[in-house]
Amino acid sequence: MPDLRSNAERALEALGVDVLVAAAPSTVTWLTGFHDDLVWGPAPFQVGPLAVVRGGERTLIVSSDQEADAAALGCAVVTYPGFGLDDPDPAGRQVEALRRLGLSGRVASEPGVLSAAAAAILGEPVVDARPELLRLQAVKSADEVERIRAAVRLADAGIAACRAAATAGMREIDLWAEVLGGIERAAGSRTPVLADLVSGARTEGIGGPPGERALEDGDVILCDLSPRLRGWWADSCATIAVGQPPPELCRAHERAVQTLDALLDAIRPGLKASELDALGRARMDYPHHTGHGLGVTPHQFPRIVPASAWTLEPGMVIALEPGTYPGPWGVRVERVALVTEDGCEVLSGHSLDL
Amino acid sequence: MPDLRSNAERALEALGVDVLVAAAPSTVTWLTGFHDDLVWGPAPFQVGPLAVVRGGERTLIVSSDQEADAAALGCAVVTYPGFGLDDPDPAGRQVEALRRLGLSGRVASEPGVLSAAAAAILGEPVVDARPELLRLQAVKSADEVERIRAAVRLADAGIAACRAAATAGMREIDLWAEVLGGIERAAGSRTPVLADLVSGARTEGIGGPPGERALEDGDVILCDLSPRLRGWWADSCATIAVGQPPPELCRAHERAVQTLDALLDAIRPGLKASELDALGRARMDYPHHTGHGLGVTPHQFPRIVPASAWTLEPGMVIALEPGTYPGPWGVRVERVALVTEDGCEVLSGHSLDL
Repeated sequence: MPDLRSNAERALEALGVDVLVAAAPSTVTWLTGFHDDLVWGPAPFQVGPLAVVRGGERTLIVSSDQEADAAALGCAVVTYPGFGLDDPDPAGRQVEALRRLGLSGRVASEPGVLSAAAAAILGEPVVDARPELLRLQAVKSADEVERIRAAVRLADAGIAACRAAATAGMREIDLWAEVLGGIERAAGSRTPVLADLVSGARTEGIGGPPGERALEDGDVILCDLSPRLRGWWADSCATIAVGQPPPELCRAHERAVQTLDALLDAIRPGLKASELDALGRARMDYPHHTGHGLGVTPHQFPRIVPASAWTLEPGMVIALEPGTYPGPWGVRVERVALVTEDGCEVLSGHSLDL
Repeated sequence: MPDLRSNAERALEALGVDVLVAAAPSTVTWLTGFHDDLVWGPAPFQVGPLAVVRGGERTLIVSSDQEADAAALGCAVVTYPGFGLDDPDPAGRQVEALRRLGLSGRVASEPGVLSAAAAAILGEPVVDARPELLRLQAVKSADEVERIRAAVRLADAGIAACRAAATAGMREIDLWAEVLGGIERAAGSRTPVLADLVSGARTEGIGGPPGERALEDGDVILCDLSPRLRGWWADSCATIAVGQPPPELCRAHERAVQTLDALLDAIRPGLKASELDALGRARMDYPHHTGHGLGVTPHQFPRIVPASAWTLEPGMVIALEPGTYPGPWGVRVERVALVTEDGCEVLSGHSLDL
């Protein structure tokens, strides 16, 4: 478990408050390491976790069913009754647990996420912590980088599984079973994965979930995988050919790989995100961002976009993903890099071959 | 798409309000049919959807990225900017979209789920709609039953895939790839699945996610699958043997199947949930509920538990799941049934063989 006490201390100091009540699952992870099960949505006897920071103390509020996982976190854990034989009221019970903490002083929270019922017992005014939290989350501790590195290994495994299995005649959803299976077998556990898996003419549309289209000879597949491991996300993309794609597609793919290399070569502390973005757009034409930070959410600051006011700093982790989508196909390649003192370290290890 | 206008009308009437602002994703589904992507958690440029009901009008508030999915629903759709090149602020933009609806009159909402920021523009007092909504959701329309029936087919496919693939030496997580692959191939799309997949001595603990334990000859596997299809959930459980399990386990399994049959035989309108529960507990010893409703959430009222005050009505859909866990193993079997005018219709089609 990474040592996240420093995140909690930095947050209180930056916000200038006595208490922080965090409600976004990603903020709770960033403060305590606790991560909700995600792949099946909200459990029926739970509501989203809360993390409360005051002074040097971090308290996690979760349902009793989640307590065992929380014990290893190194922070205080308060539980409310979860799954049982009586009538469940997780929201009401969570608010009661929050009330019993007897919070006082100047409070910051996340009013765009915190429930109205929980907010009602915090009193007024409450500082909106969200902009400051997003700023702080952009720069990772060494522990967090190791978490992301481990998640990137799963992305590598997923891309490799896609490459090994892709065969004309199988449907995207059949291929997906191999991709997700490859990731979950490597993880040893069920794993949330944000993913594009599209083939043939669907690649012109940039992304989307796997569907029932059958792969054809000469297709390419856009396989863009963001798995989450123990609360931290990775990202990756490869364009994978089934048979021999047309020559102009091969040339576009080569240009995308060269553009990605140029972007990675350019990374250094002090470089503006907007400059990095411009470097990519000078070489290729794509309608999306050039890249984005990642961590406890799959997209974070700094966004690598034209209007960004951010500057790269050591400890930022960014994904770069140039591509082009002229139709009737599209290509994209992506790697994740850690900004270091004098450049970057590429964390991704997957093949970018077509 | 099921006709859900009647749900909206029933809700306004039962709550005695002019406006309902729904924030729980399951309530939004129940009112509009819209279902969020779930398997990868909250998307970075979205917040949970809102559904607003007033008079005969239903309005869904979602990010622009979800507009295409929402267009087919037959209700008004309001979008806020989602994925783009500017700085995202989904919560702020959603609240602004809600404000522009200019709601007035007596308002009900879900304060345990609705964000504090959204609640702040609704004014006071706001009726807590949650208890009434949970009551209304227990009885399904014919359209909703068809949705659940289709989801149950996916559960059947998952149990069949588990039975076909389970082999000594493979790990639970390897088996899970076959189970989820079986479900998603049958669905033709990525599918949220709440699941227990445990083997050997882990079955004594009732459930849990698949892990790295390798199956051994003589084991049983508890495979309990709740897939969601287009917003509605199913449920199912089978106990599946690897090789030849011990005789006392086989006898316990036979008793569980007989108990399930007796429970299904007993279902009729007017039967108290507590009576049905007592019937199960008179035959077997288990620490959990005897069963539960299901629909837009994987667990709903009526819960089949000792203290339930509910009575069965036609249109309720309930899962029944007797078992026993004496150690070093456990067994459980489960089927889903629709309460009809004179008994029940069993929706599940999976094999209960050991």
